[in-house]
Amino acid sequence: MKVCKFGGTSVASAKQLKKVAAIVKEDPARQIVVVSAPGKRYEEDEKVTDMLIKLVQAALSGEDVSHPLEAVVERYAIIAGELGLGKEIVETIEADLEKRLQEDKQNAALFTDQLKASGEDNSAKLVAAYLTSIGLPASYINPKDAGLVVNGLPDRAQALPESYTNLSALNRRDTISVFPGFFGYTREGVLRTFERGGSDITGSILAASVKAEMYENFTDVDCVFAANPRSVENPVEIEQMTYREMRELSYAGFAVLHDEALMPAYKAAVPLCIKNTNNPKSSGTMIVAERDISNRPVIGISADSGFSTLYVSKYLMNREIGFGRKLLQILEDEQISYEHIPSGIDNLSVIIRSHQLSPEKEARIIERVKNELYADDVHIRSEFSMVVLVGEGMNNSTGLAARATDAIARTGANIEMINQGSSEVSLVFGVLKKDEKKILNELYKEFFEAAIVV
Amino acid sequence: MKVCKFGGTSVASAKQLKKVAAIVKEDPARQIVVVSAPGKRYEEDEKVTDMLIKLVQAALSGEDVSHPLEAVVERYAIIAGELGLGKEIVETIEADLEKRLQEDKQNAALFTDQLKASGEDNSAKLVAAYLTSIGLPASYINPKDAGLVVNGLPDRAQALPESYTNLSALNRRDTISVFPGFFGYTREGVLRTFERGGSDITGSILAASVKAEMYENFTDVDCVFAANPRSVENPVEIEQMTYREMRELSYAGFAVLHDEALMPAYKAAVPLCIKNTNNPKSSGTMIVAERDISNRPVIGISADSGFSTLYVSKYLMNREIGFGRKLLQILEDEQISYEHIPSGIDNLSVIIRSHQLSPEKEARIIERVKNELYADDVHIRSEFSMVVLVGEGMNNSTGLAARATDAIARTGANIEMINQGSSEVSLVFGVLKKDEKKILNELYKEFFEAAIVV
Repeated sequence: MKVCKFGGTSVASAKQLKKVAAIVKEDPARQIVVVSAPGKRYEEDEKVTDMLIKLVQAALSGEDVSHPLEAVVERYAIIAGELGLGKEIVETIEADLEKRLQEDKQNAALFTDQLKASGEDNSAKLVAAYLTSIGLPASYINPKDAGLVVNGLPDRAQALPESYTNLSALNRRDTISVFPGFFGYTREGVLRTFERGGSDITGSILAASVKAEMYENFTDVDCVFAANPRSVENPVEIEQMTYREMRELSYAGFAVLHDEALMPAYKAAVPLCIKNTNNPKSSGTMIVAERDISNRPVIGISADSGFSTLYVSKYLMNREIGFGRKLLQILEDEQISYEHIPSGIDNLSVIIRSHQLSPEKEARIIERVKNELYADDVHIRSEFSMVVLVGEGMNNSTGLAARATDAIARTGANIEMINQGSSEVSLVFGVLKKDEKKILNELYKEFFEAAIVV
Repeated sequence: MKVCKFGGTSVASAKQLKKVAAIVKEDPARQIVVVSAPGKRYEEDEKVTDMLIKLVQAALSGEDVSHPLEAVVERYAIIAGELGLGKEIVETIEADLEKRLQEDKQNAALFTDQLKASGEDNSAKLVAAYLTSIGLPASYINPKDAGLVVNGLPDRAQALPESYTNLSALNRRDTISVFPGFFGYTREGVLRTFERGGSDITGSILAASVKAEMYENFTDVDCVFAANPRSVENPVEIEQMTYREMRELSYAGFAVLHDEALMPAYKAAVPLCIKNTNNPKSSGTMIVAERDISNRPVIGISADSGFSTLYVSKYLMNREIGFGRKLLQILEDEQISYEHIPSGIDNLSVIIRSHQLSPEKEARIIERVKNELYADDVHIRSEFSMVVLVGEGMNNSTGLAARATDAIARTGANIEMINQGSSEVSLVFGVLKKDEKKILNELYKEFFEAAIVV
């Protein structure tokens, strides 16, 4: 049995849903289908989820909801019409939305969650109706009935262990199960959503629950590339990589899969495949437990900008037990997470994503580090990028760090930070944002171009 | 005016003290002399400080102290005899020790401090008597009278700001001031010692107080070498380096100067010179604020073994605000300080000096990280070494990291950790202890041998 998850662009229109149906039909192992809410049909189009957010805002502020409600229903109606489905499914969806609008608005977060989740929920109903209409018997599965149980507020929604037992029942059905992504229910029956993009998580939980032979994640790209095609011309396709490599690449913008989606499949040892709804013949990128690293020690290079560094120096800092802990406490008080902490003997730097900072926060942090930690010097600099070299071969090939630093030296750019040593599969360079692209290209040339020639 | 500090081997015997006198006599600017307790005269000899520790132990356990006391007095008596000094100085020293033995033993730490400090104190009295006897009018200066005020227990003794004002009076004396190193007095008049090796600190405080033109630290080596002569054959001598470079080199065993001794001189902009009592003609190593880096971007390479790494991995760790802080809190609860924290996306390693760990501590740490932080994996590995490349040029020359990693790659050894980015003057490599020496030699070859040929 395979679990297939189709993203927003894959269920955005009748044309796309016909591709989905063909994919499901082609392989009888595809018994569980997880769907997102309809996404964009073209660049300027609006995603159903964004339309639902507008509907929520209107409802919460007491405005007339008829226009935004109509817009959502219309999106489904267009798809249903083009697929030749009867009026019934559209009426079901409209009634569902009206019922959700009557829900308690006291807790705005929960009201928002249940209305946003309708995007995936109604998408699943529509897809089940369509598959059935073309002779592929399919049932919409309600996550509450199926037992996708999640934790309650104020935590971020995450599946509880019992979900896996409950959902394993899905491998004993004789019709195709169409399951809405993105949400579950607490033990008390309250709907809670995952983070945006969380349909990937639903698919992974289902794949783990039924011990699927594979979790296929259908998107609108053929595969994961070895570098961002926006920065590097025609990067090579990654045919196969390990879970760890995928995870380290996600560090800096390889946003093919939601961060939380890897773990359920990984723990259940279900291989994951990234495929393209628009080009299903392409073999895609397989994510597995182990791979042969002999001809490709580096699997990919990611880069991300928008980092700042908090530099702190204090004479004899290294002897002061508790210094680092107190510094991190100050950041925690500002609700700031950090990426790396390179350190010298009397100084350390904390690498932070800049979006977490503001002039007020920076001033408070500097003030506290000076006054509470008696630092000799404190300052914050921004406009840094992180370039991350990822590969299972990182740990065994001594020459890799040398090749990488040589490549960066060739660009004439300075290396502001090097971090290696905890992850066995990544090597991180901190560089000035202005140098990011040329460094990324030179590293790509060093580790991938020779391979292309062969 | 120059402040000269003479270490234990420089005041260990009459022969050595004659060298000291010649050095003091040679330059009339040498107006303040700071002395350690007599050290070893030959490899198997016992330092006076160690003899005093035995005396303390006997006194505290209520044993007969006559034998250990006699041993200490005898050491001074031999020196005094060979210098042709009268009996008086030896009687003064003996009376002083007997008086100290009568002090209150309730607080063992303070009793120990005041007895240990007699090593330096009586050394200063002896040196003052000797200099005077050969026509160099000199006075023993009592740190209490002179106002070297330090903080009280339970902190580590450190000079309070008023000391600098008090001690500045020493530049208005017309005899040579001989000042005992290693201790001061609290505002309440209680004797407190610095850390072992703390005579260097006393000298630096005095040099800063009198705004000396130079602080000369006389040891038994000609200079600071670019690498440890025990690991690298005939390393080059460092003629000049900056305070920051000296500080970063102290990371890993360049133990020429006590850690805390650099700051007073640095803050008062007093240049520091490391010189050899046994070879005063040698120009030594000058430690200054700035140097020309054009022909020597790397000034030295230090290496130290005895490091362990605590590895912790947890899925989505990087999103969890407070994870690093909680981990450091667990180490702090065990009174453990750390050196570096390299990190990947879902994992981090804490580099710790192994002597701080024990099987019990390791078990408690692993248990707590698993149970309190819900880590997926925790383990501790040992037998690591840190190799540190130090140089003011580190920040401006991109090629340095490439040259260093290339050199390590040539040895065939693996790089376990790279840390660069906070200090502008150092680049740290974590390697297996077994590879330390070959890496150190290859790095030395890369950065210094070409210079020797020129």
